[in-house]
Amino acid sequence: MVASVPDAAFDDRLAAVRRRLVEAGADALVLFDATSVEYLSGFHHIQTERPVALVVTPERVDLVVPRLEVERVADNPRIDAVHDYFDYPGGDPIGVLGETLAGLDADAVVADGDGAPGVMGYEGPSLSAAAGVVVDTVDWVPRMRWAKSDAEVDLIRESATWANLGHRYLTDYTEVGAHPVTVSQRATTDASRAMLDALGDRYAVRTRGDGPVFAGYVSGEETRLPHGHTPNERLFEGDVLITGATANVDGYYSELERTMFVGEPSDEDEHYFSLMLEAQRLAIDALGPDVPVAHVDEVVREYFEEQGVANLARHHVGHNIGLGAHEPPYLDRGWGEHCEAFGDPAEAVIEPGHVYTIEPGLYTDEAGYRHSDTVAVTEDGVERLTHYPRDLQSNVIR
Amino acid sequence: MVASVPDAAFDDRLAAVRRRLVEAGADALVLFDATSVEYLSGFHHIQTERPVALVVTPERVDLVVPRLEVERVADNPRIDAVHDYFDYPGGDPIGVLGETLAGLDADAVVADGDGAPGVMGYEGPSLSAAAGVVVDTVDWVPRMRWAKSDAEVDLIRESATWANLGHRYLTDYTEVGAHPVTVSQRATTDASRAMLDALGDRYAVRTRGDGPVFAGYVSGEETRLPHGHTPNERLFEGDVLITGATANVDGYYSELERTMFVGEPSDEDEHYFSLMLEAQRLAIDALGPDVPVAHVDEVVREYFEEQGVANLARHHVGHNIGLGAHEPPYLDRGWGEHCEAFGDPAEAVIEPGHVYTIEPGLYTDEAGYRHSDTVAVTEDGVERLTHYPRDLQSNVIR
Repeated sequence: MVASVPDAAFDDRLAAVRRRLVEAGADALVLFDATSVEYLSGFHHIQTERPVALVVTPERVDLVVPRLEVERVADNPRIDAVHDYFDYPGGDPIGVLGETLAGLDADAVVADGDGAPGVMGYEGPSLSAAAGVVVDTVDWVPRMRWAKSDAEVDLIRESATWANLGHRYLTDYTEVGAHPVTVSQRATTDASRAMLDALGDRYAVRTRGDGPVFAGYVSGEETRLPHGHTPNERLFEGDVLITGATANVDGYYSELERTMFVGEPSDEDEHYFSLMLEAQRLAIDALGPDVPVAHVDEVVREYFEEQGVANLARHHVGHNIGLGAHEPPYLDRGWGEHCEAFGDPAEAVIEPGHVYTIEPGLYTDEAGYRHSDTVAVTEDGVERLTHYPRDLQSNVIR
Repeated sequence: MVASVPDAAFDDRLAAVRRRLVEAGADALVLFDATSVEYLSGFHHIQTERPVALVVTPERVDLVVPRLEVERVADNPRIDAVHDYFDYPGGDPIGVLGETLAGLDADAVVADGDGAPGVMGYEGPSLSAAAGVVVDTVDWVPRMRWAKSDAEVDLIRESATWANLGHRYLTDYTEVGAHPVTVSQRATTDASRAMLDALGDRYAVRTRGDGPVFAGYVSGEETRLPHGHTPNERLFEGDVLITGATANVDGYYSELERTMFVGEPSDEDEHYFSLMLEAQRLAIDALGPDVPVAHVDEVVREYFEEQGVANLARHHVGHNIGLGAHEPPYLDRGWGEHCEAFGDPAEAVIEPGHVYTIEPGLYTDEAGYRHSDTVAVTEDGVERLTHYPRDLQSNVIR
């Protein structure tokens, strides 16, 4: 059981970035994106209007932070020095970053942006202008994150285990007359507590107040909307639910969603449920290494067209998942063309280590029907990481 | 009691933007930012890699969305037409936006960015290149959000009421040996359910699975970190807690934080608590219309210097709050200089309608000490919106 990113993973990531630095003839890589900073260094923080910047050179790792983050860096073995400004905007984050780069003799810089992003109202100078360096923007780290290592897949598998527990509680606590928010929050609370007590010291502390597990649902007519809300009304006999459950395991997420029925489903419910289930089966079957990303979405489109329900689809089949809830590649019919226009045509195919949500859906005027499973692509096939039962009878709550 | 944004507020916001369109000699305003879209139109969505764009002209409001959002727009009285693409990247969001602009004869466009932001891995063309229009970027809507209307302050006041309930439950459920995550999640669940049942039909449906109230805390040594996490360990006699409570009222938030003690505080605890409390009092006293934003932070800095504890401060005094958890202006000693460099010097002073968190803190090697209250600036003074007791004895849990 692996519940946190191993040190060796960070060594591998830093080594990969340093090889690219040498190839690019650059002196330093600067990262402003919080997830990229975390991916390379293990330094996790809440991204606000206060810029944070990680500087990686062939020899060192430096970090620029607001004063309030200094103590959190202390026990990070990968960061050689921390440089702080008091706060924003009175402090001078880009100035401190410029001094840091000057101290490292870094003139040719690659970065994930020419300055910090405009989060929560941040406005500041470009890095190139403020620091007098040449900045080329690169997407190395987001692109590295597409294919997960075995250790990362382990974390997502662990997430799926605790999501499954949350989902089981969700099912157990659901009954006619219950309030969906209360059911969701009880399941979330109980599964979080179980995960914390089961993992004990192995749990990588991650949340503030919240627990690591989330389990909840959208009910009734709101299921018509793929991104519906939870209505403020109690459950009725005949309600359709679309659930969602996940758990944060050192920053990594899985995604588990089920279409469920409170009481007996109608004939119409059974019809659309079975079409959705078959579409999901076809998509998982289509998934594998070297398959064009777009193909998985095309398979579902063709099936829905054959069945005469293409007009009830509202979105593509799924997306990559990991540290981000949605990550590219997206399982979308247009992915190949997108790579031609904005990326590299070689990126049009599925690679081992990609971890996809598979979630084709159908939406009528009355309800929505969508499961979502998290599936890892291996060297020679796929592995389903989420394991809650998918069949109709297991998803009827009587 | 107001629990949702009134129609008249949207009329006012659209009218203000249209006056600026005329002044700027522009044909249309395009907004990609989800909060800006919601602020002007009331259309709320979860921002993902799929771009959404609101187009406001002197006569009409058009909305470009992925197919999955179409049904949610249906009952919005302010949106004249919805234009959809199937999904990203196979659909062509910026192309659909370009056609929408062409249909409106809009050649001179102001926008919050020359293209959609890179959320969750989105990459796409610039609006100017794709649509063949001239695009000037403007920050009209984020800037309009600084000063809240009376209706907006009502929503934040309502948020403070439910945050207070969550905080009360948090206090009631806290005891030696309890797990902080379970206490937090129980308080969140019970306060959310109370809010939903009390508001009934007046509650603007907003969340997915989660309830509208959040109440939680960071405990023990993690309080040393201003953005600490909740540790996976039970509460001990003598633990310091830094709490946080809020409630989502049609998208608006308040912020309530208290420093609390599990059992009797030590002499050191009492010492730093009293310094923190006095600093907060001084900051609230300093707040008011036409006061330089930076002054409020300076008052606290001077007090901490006089008391010999300036080295224990880790951040400025607070920030504006509303639809965003952090919004400018920030109560920071550098705000005036920031306006000179990046804004308008006239923006250096506090205006009626600004709503600030007031949260000076002190952090030792063992614990942190910080209250946060949400305070609205009125025409002639201030109004404290959060009302949980601030004194030491009310914050000792025996």
